[in-house]
Amino acid sequence: MNKIILLTGFEPFGGDSINPSLEIAKNLQGKDFDGFIVKALEVPVRDTKCLNVMENAIKEYQPSVIISVGLAWGRSAISLERIGINTRDYPIPDNDGQQPINQPIDPEGPAAYFSTLPIRAIVKELRDSGIPAYISNTAGTYLCNQVMYGTLNYITKNQLPIKSGFIHIPYLSSQIAQKGEIIPSLPFETLVNSIEIAIKTSIRQQEDILLIAGAVN
Amino acid sequence: MNKIILLTGFEPFGGDSINPSLEIAKNLQGKDFDGFIVKALEVPVRDTKCLNVMENAIKEYQPSVIISVGLAWGRSAISLERIGINTRDYPIPDNDGQQPINQPIDPEGPAAYFSTLPIRAIVKELRDSGIPAYISNTAGTYLCNQVMYGTLNYITKNQLPIKSGFIHIPYLSSQIAQKGEIIPSLPFETLVNSIEIAIKTSIRQQEDILLIAGAVN
Amino acid sequence: MNKIILLTGFEPFGGDSINPSLEIAKNLQGKDFDGFIVKALEVPVRDTKCLNVMENAIKEYQPSVIISVGLAWGRSAISLERIGINTRDYPIPDNDGQQPINQPIDPEGPAAYFSTLPIRAIVKELRDSGIPAYISNTAGTYLCNQVMYGTLNYITKNQLPIKSGFIHIPYLSSQIAQKGEIIPSLPFETLVNSIEIAIKTSIRQQEDILLIAGAVN
Amino acid sequence: MNKIILLTGFEPFGGDSINPSLEIAKNLQGKDFDGFIVKALEVPVRDTKCLNVMENAIKEYQPSVIISVGLAWGRSAISLERIGINTRDYPIPDNDGQQPINQPIDPEGPAAYFSTLPIRAIVKELRDSGIPAYISNTAGTYLCNQVMYGTLNYITKNQLPIKSGFIHIPYLSSQIAQKGEIIPSLPFETLVNSIEIAIKTSIRQQEDILLIAGAVN
Repeated sequence: MNKIILLTGFEPFGGDSINPSLEIAKNLQGKDFDGFIVKALEVPVRDTKCLNVMENAIKEYQPSVIISVGLAWGRSAISLERIGINTRDYPIPDNDGQQPINQPIDPEGPAAYFSTLPIRAIVKELRDSGIPAYISNTAGTYLCNQVMYGTLNYITKNQLPIKSGFIHIPYLSSQIAQKGEIIPSLPFETLVNSIEIAIKTSIRQQEDILLIAGAVN
Repeated sequence: MNKIILLTGFEPFGGDSINPSLEIAKNLQGKDFDGFIVKALEVPVRDTKCLNVMENAIKEYQPSVIISVGLAWGRSAISLERIGINTRDYPIPDNDGQQPINQPIDPEGPAAYFSTLPIRAIVKELRDSGIPAYISNTAGTYLCNQVMYGTLNYITKNQLPIKSGFIHIPYLSSQIAQKGEIIPSLPFETLVNSIEIAIKTSIRQQEDILLIAGAVN
Repeated sequence: MNKIILLTGFEPFGGDSINPSLEIAKNLQGKDFDGFIVKALEVPVRDTKCLNVMENAIKEYQPSVIISVGLAWGRSAISLERIGINTRDYPIPDNDGQQPINQPIDPEGPAAYFSTLPIRAIVKELRDSGIPAYISNTAGTYLCNQVMYGTLNYITKNQLPIKSGFIHIPYLSSQIAQKGEIIPSLPFETLVNSIEIAIKTSIRQQEDILLIAGAVN
Repeated sequence: MNKIILLTGFEPFGGDSINPSLEIAKNLQGKDFDGFIVKALEVPVRDTKCLNVMENAIKEYQPSVIISVGLAWGRSAISLERIGINTRDYPIPDNDGQQPINQPIDPEGPAAYFSTLPIRAIVKELRDSGIPAYISNTAGTYLCNQVMYGTLNYITKNQLPIKSGFIHIPYLSSQIAQKGEIIPSLPFETLVNSIEIAIKTSIRQQEDILLIAGAVN
């Protein structure tokens, strides 16, 4: 494995012209964290294709850590996803108009995979930096969950030494301001800073498996 | 297996004097649904003990179907849980004052089990009866999830032909009225009726594995 | 004034085929409460017309008490409105396609009127009957508020001895079930029962101005 | 009147060690906006005393504009309050342990006063600057509303040419992070920037009463 952090964001969907998860990835593209270099990846909001793109990037970059980021309507804090489940049950169609209902992601795969990122350490570091964060118990059943489960499934089946997980972020304040909506949001600087902290903690915790004690949920 | 429906509710916790999930089970104790008899079971809100009680009841009654019911603060509709995960991460202590953080339920068990109840058919029947319902993607990481995961784990390991799953219910209207709170609730009659519909659908679907199509999430 | 309770509900709006507030009024039409008879009135969701209809009904029936009921998306309990304000600022167009923004209801009127119903006694009676209820501090700036403010304004200007106020109710469970949504709701029986309790308390409190002490908010 | 902006925040309450509204006022103390100087004022969370402090400051500084700021648990955007009502109905005791229930602020005062700040222009400017904002229809019935109503009442009774209003802000992100809670918040920089925009718009709109059209609710 290379000293590469694969940082993924999604293409816009649901009528939005930008997707903050992708803007974060672009913003951190090429950045060096203690010798680990960020490779930004745009993931399509499209069934099957999303995982093809992930798998190709894993083959190409052979990253040590994969952090996938997605937008979660209504959430008010950075959410470290605990688990990805073997389910495609889309509440809305994807960008190809597909809407699988009650289907597995991998008919041969297990029910679920836990994140292999140090999610409790990341929550602690975020909170210590003044950014609200928590461990979430569901990444939903749309593309975000599909990328989380599918990537962990691919890593496991191919016995790759890659840490991987998913982070849901609140909406971008400027996006909500422009729409005139009243839902939780955070400014772009805070969102970028959150992912930087997640990257730093993931790198450090890879070499340092010190147990982080205490309830953070 | 016997023509028994094991219907479980929890003892009160968190300072409440009653637990609607237990009141529902008591209310339906002994009731006959097409030849299937309800056995009501009170489950302790206590780590380890909760699963001991479940396993003993399974041995004693050898039920065909297990429906476990629990209270979910803030939910506004009947929630059919999709999945139980191998995690104990209690947000508050249990009734013995125990609060495991970030522990598995079964260190040897898989990450998760899907409900084996016909959850989509139950959602459809509830909605057709005028009761709001949906499929939930998380049963949390407290005792409700522990009972769901632990029961499915026991059934799987012992290769028992039992359908099992978990249903989260909103608070009882009279309980919220008494406390003077402003959170979603439903009257007792609606809650009892919901579980009756879940029982009837589970019995029928056991013999009738017709696929229920259409997104209900 | 006659021993008449004027009970008003709104015509459907926003794409719904029924409006529970109107169904409640129809259900209680003609009912006798200690010699007081309910007159049900359908109020249009239309600027200006809504108050014309209210004023004509007041002239025709000369009621002792007016209870206006409206639907409030997302509320989880019976809401006794404390105050109506002199504002039309519609978040969506009315049923005539009109959408006044930042306009007064009566350019000569005061900023606001407090409800003259015994709202604290009603909250207490509802809670004692097992129905969640609270005092709300805003009836919004749409037709519900317009009917509340406009009716109290008419009564005050004409020095009529009529008690009047507004009650917001949650959505009807069967309506939410049919739509497959996940928002708070209550069954029809509970909603009807709530308004019956409000009527009985309003009649009794008209003769009994005993102070109801204690915070119920 | 002097070219003074009186900017008020509250002392901490409810167990918190700091109150972001006060931190904002301190941060902007003495700042010059087009010749208008900010005077920061700490307002006690104490019945009666809060208005004594406001009135003394008005006499001392003779400000042109008063902007009072308060914290609103759970709100996710900057809230420009439309109206203050003649009600003290505290949901929790104040910092002196007083908890008036269902009392007027001024037994001789009118039911309510509308904000005299250009609230729609402020919402527009905030949104154009990428900060979520909206017009709120209730400032509650605690100290925030008391300061809003009481100040407008004093200004009106004394016929003072002062623009005055109230702005509710979300919780501070670092405060929520420290508590480990999951409610909406914004970083300190965003909160300070919001109040700066409100000040600038209030100054400009005082000389420019151009109508700001369009629904912003």
